[in-house]
Amino acid sequence: MPSHVSPPRGMRDFLPAEKRRRERVLATIRDVYRSYGFDEIETPVVESTDYLHSGLGGDNEKQVFAVLKRGLDVEALRAADSALALADLGLRFDLTVPLARFYASHRSELPGVFRSVQVAPVWRAERPQKGRYRQFVQCDIDILGEAGPLAEVELISATTAVLSSLGLHGTSIRINDRRILLGVLAHWGTPAELTDQALIELDKLDKLGVTGVVDRLVEIGLERDGLDDALGELSTAEWSTITGTAPPAWLDVEAAADLVALRDALPDARLVFDPTLVRGMGYYTGTIFEVAHPDFGYSLGGGGRYDGMIGRFLGVDVPAAGFSLGFERIVDLVDDADAGREGLVLVHDASVPAAELVALRAGLLEQGEARVRLERRVKNLTRQLDTLAAAGYTRFASVRGGEGVGDLDVRTLG
Amino acid sequence: MPSHVSPPRGMRDFLPAEKRRRERVLATIRDVYRSYGFDEIETPVVESTDYLHSGLGGDNEKQVFAVLKRGLDVEALRAADSALALADLGLRFDLTVPLARFYASHRSELPGVFRSVQVAPVWRAERPQKGRYRQFVQCDIDILGEAGPLAEVELISATTAVLSSLGLHGTSIRINDRRILLGVLAHWGTPAELTDQALIELDKLDKLGVTGVVDRLVEIGLERDGLDDALGELSTAEWSTITGTAPPAWLDVEAAADLVALRDALPDARLVFDPTLVRGMGYYTGTIFEVAHPDFGYSLGGGGRYDGMIGRFLGVDVPAAGFSLGFERIVDLVDDADAGREGLVLVHDASVPAAELVALRAGLLEQGEARVRLERRVKNLTRQLDTLAAAGYTRFASVRGGEGVGDLDVRTLG
Repeated sequence: MPSHVSPPRGMRDFLPAEKRRRERVLATIRDVYRSYGFDEIETPVVESTDYLHSGLGGDNEKQVFAVLKRGLDVEALRAADSALALADLGLRFDLTVPLARFYASHRSELPGVFRSVQVAPVWRAERPQKGRYRQFVQCDIDILGEAGPLAEVELISATTAVLSSLGLHGTSIRINDRRILLGVLAHWGTPAELTDQALIELDKLDKLGVTGVVDRLVEIGLERDGLDDALGELSTAEWSTITGTAPPAWLDVEAAADLVALRDALPDARLVFDPTLVRGMGYYTGTIFEVAHPDFGYSLGGGGRYDGMIGRFLGVDVPAAGFSLGFERIVDLVDDADAGREGLVLVHDASVPAAELVALRAGLLEQGEARVRLERRVKNLTRQLDTLAAAGYTRFASVRGGEGVGDLDVRTLG
Repeated sequence: MPSHVSPPRGMRDFLPAEKRRRERVLATIRDVYRSYGFDEIETPVVESTDYLHSGLGGDNEKQVFAVLKRGLDVEALRAADSALALADLGLRFDLTVPLARFYASHRSELPGVFRSVQVAPVWRAERPQKGRYRQFVQCDIDILGEAGPLAEVELISATTAVLSSLGLHGTSIRINDRRILLGVLAHWGTPAELTDQALIELDKLDKLGVTGVVDRLVEIGLERDGLDDALGELSTAEWSTITGTAPPAWLDVEAAADLVALRDALPDARLVFDPTLVRGMGYYTGTIFEVAHPDFGYSLGGGGRYDGMIGRFLGVDVPAAGFSLGFERIVDLVDDADAGREGLVLVHDASVPAAELVALRAGLLEQGEARVRLERRVKNLTRQLDTLAAAGYTRFASVRGGEGVGDLDVRTLG
């Protein structure tokens, strides 16, 4: 047995107060999404390595925790030319690949337009650092089978309602379309084979600024001529840039019209047009969006349309769009100081018969008490009561034996 | 990409109706345990192989899904003399080993008597068969730090309340004590080194009957003389056997007194004394119990006292007792036909503007509607409405555009 005792590297235990807080936030998220007509599903935490390493997960595929094949013998170890060849399963790194697999497995049992919600942990073998964990919860909603903008409308309105139910007011949604990005790159004369790499560089605008990104784009092969001005113009574009009578030459007009229609359908969601928004994953094909909050420099979630992906699993293309909330970031922001504080503690002498305590508690619960804990009185009663107050209990009563529910002298705790 | 698309062998996807049903049962279990003063905790799904293979998991240790070490190179593969040497983590096979590790990690942050509840999946690489899964949920409560029978009283009364809240009436609790079993074996002249094996054989009484078990006991080295009668007498023992004025010679009198005290403290729990109850795990040291239901041949859960186990991780012995419910068995028994049926569907023409649908839904939710789904009208409306009724929606309204909340003609569905 090891001498140190801790959870695996980069992973966390949740003590009662934190677990309660997480479960409450998760319940709100589930309830609101459910009220918007999304159906919760669940898949196993592991998937076949075939699915996990199908190229849909981008860099995340490198971070799969691989699960050893069963019954491997020493010959198999000797014969393997990589560790990965010894694994047939892996812990999922997101909820999108499992959803695609799930949909392919069960399409005939699901409605024509399927609105799913998944609230579940994922695993990535990232280098552990502050705020990055190797097991963390994602909250994904997805709409499969809806090609029109109603999918995006539903995703954004439901998620806006979730954020507001959690008390996270003042959020806005940065929005763009992959078609606009591709139009911009084409307008800049980007060769088709450089598109993916150019998007990756463009995604660094927050970190590197216009000059830094231009340097990178030139490095990978774009012409420097005029690029500074072009990227500068792009980064200051706003709704008025694309709704005027003379649209810019780089604009994909059809995509722009879709975005404006989205904005008009969602007056409460504060959509902010940002043609430099990229989103990391390669599978997006249309609208992309991210939740921004004025108080935080990072996004609280994001998503977009990924029409080609489900087809990779199913063999038939199915239009799809999704929105993923960064639960670990959100749970830290939710104000929750007093929530979950309720309950009565019966501090009893060791001599009180167990049958009496059991009956007393049953009576209190029956009368509507939410939570009743039995605690044998210890020497340092003050410290004992402090601990109970910290655990969220609000009242206590001493039990010396022979009391009924009506006889208890209930006092406030803390 | 593979041509067949299914979850990993022996694991399950949960579609919306089944997921809803599972979450409802889980919520009841959590709520009742919480009302009895248990605090929910969570640990990572993987633990260090050191902990998982520490000998506390019995046969379950052989069924660990092992997770490959990160960054393994080919030399390491060549040098390894077993697959297990390539793994540093594994998926947990129960919630007891993680609890022991958790308690050792956080003891100073926890109350003197710690009542935990864990509701979470575990994994075992069992041979897949009907009703046995490789990922399944366990519901465990444990009390650490309480040496007296109040721990057992709390475990059994809270679990009885859970079963009754789930509508599973008529359950009883078979109860025994490891000290009684050891007393019986000693009385039969069992050599100390055969005790563990003898308990394993005794545990097969349900399957093999008295004669079969006696054959096995003789096989491993016990004297056949009188064993048939002795086991027969044991298997028919009941409360009156141990409460009479002349206790049988095989009875550990102190353990019997504890059991009788438990019975008297829990008049509603229907405790049934059964001195042949063994429970599989080697770590039990005192009381052991199992939930029986007259309609089912299998147990719905069980547990007992395991005073020595936490010390294996902590270095200091801590008294402990726990009760684990077999969630997968229970969820199949809960009657739930009509639960979760609620909600309104807005069946709209494709021409209705999205902004109007969003506003209509927001108004309905604000007025207290629990769940509102938007569905574009398809050609076969009857089939569409049937699908929605099957998904649990109870009412629908057609939206052709221009309606306000008050104008909707809401009809019953299904």
